[in-house]
Amino acid sequence: MTKVSTGATMSLDGYIADASHGGFEHLFQWYGNGDVEIPTATPGMTFRTSAASAEHVRALTERTGALVVGRRLFDMTNGWGGRHPMDVPVVVVTHHVPEGWDREGDSFVFVTDGIEAAIERAKTLAGDKEVGVNGGTIATQVLEAGLLDEVHVDLVPVLLGDGIPFFAGLRIAPVQLEGPVRVVQGTEVTHLAYRVRR
Amino acid sequence: MTKVSTGATMSLDGYIADASHGGFEHLFQWYGNGDVEIPTATPGMTFRTSAASAEHVRALTERTGALVVGRRLFDMTNGWGGRHPMDVPVVVVTHHVPEGWDREGDSFVFVTDGIEAAIERAKTLAGDKEVGVNGGTIATQVLEAGLLDEVHVDLVPVLLGDGIPFFAGLRIAPVQLEGPVRVVQGTEVTHLAYRVRR
Repeated sequence: MTKVSTGATMSLDGYIADASHGGFEHLFQWYGNGDVEIPTATPGMTFRTSAASAEHVRALTERTGALVVGRRLFDMTNGWGGRHPMDVPVVVVTHHVPEGWDREGDSFVFVTDGIEAAIERAKTLAGDKEVGVNGGTIATQVLEAGLLDEVHVDLVPVLLGDGIPFFAGLRIAPVQLEGPVRVVQGTEVTHLAYRVRR
Repeated sequence: MTKVSTGATMSLDGYIADASHGGFEHLFQWYGNGDVEIPTATPGMTFRTSAASAEHVRALTERTGALVVGRRLFDMTNGWGGRHPMDVPVVVVTHHVPEGWDREGDSFVFVTDGIEAAIERAKTLAGDKEVGVNGGTIATQVLEAGLLDEVHVDLVPVLLGDGIPFFAGLRIAPVQLEGPVRVVQGTEVTHLAYRVRR
């Protein structure tokens, strides 16, 4: 069985994004607060993290064979300039194939018939590797559809006071998890992994 | 300097209470899911936790010399039946001394002139021990007043989807913390401690 996981960087008070207070710079500080370089497939984009976080990201990248993302994230990042930083094929869940893009490409596959189909497609693309799901709304849908195996939280020691919660609007709560099955302490971030209980 | 800390049991998606989904039984499961008994000062109230959580609670109880709580928590628990389970004096922040209670007792002291005065009073009562602050609203006020030194989170692997966030309505965000300075893994709970940065 191909494992399906999602992850987010989260403040200690539970927010993965915060428009009003501009807390983003605190959430994502750990991508740049170390001296171990993590190259990406995106030209000019290199992370510099603690050794522990770098090893964590390297292992995650190595395990991941394909991603599933929502259309909003694809648009926001402008299709990551043509190739995702993790250098894996990305399945985009959308109502319509965006103008100027092929339905099936090496870097992006646009799936218009729902989340189950998108996960199925990503599993095929991932081969013997794992599928990662990115974006809070899509992750919530995958969890609600019973298709999510793991939840990864990069917990950052900051209080944002307000923002977008992880798994906002979850309709099948409470969802019990198991773990943490993995704990990695980086600099100003704790990488936690949990298994979804069936 | 007397250390002032607050703590809460929190779901992985950041909620410390959840009225609508009844998630409380999941949040507080760790107080009863082990076989090490933790007696309390409340007759008939004994926790049964994992050995790791029991040691964590024992150490916390030993360190704590006084508590500060809000009037709502005092009323909700009916004054803990006369004595707090931790067996320490409790300073209650309130507008009026509740009927039937002395302003100054062995178990409860009612402070009507604000949060700074309450913390001051608790520090005196704590002697060479620490002060604990209980209740989300009061903890937020103490943090906003610059009087909080540590934040403790008992992180529970459950998603509640909705509820009352930790430090809800915080007006001085973002607040940067340091740590975790302590990580204790119990059964279905991770005890994390952070220091507030000045």
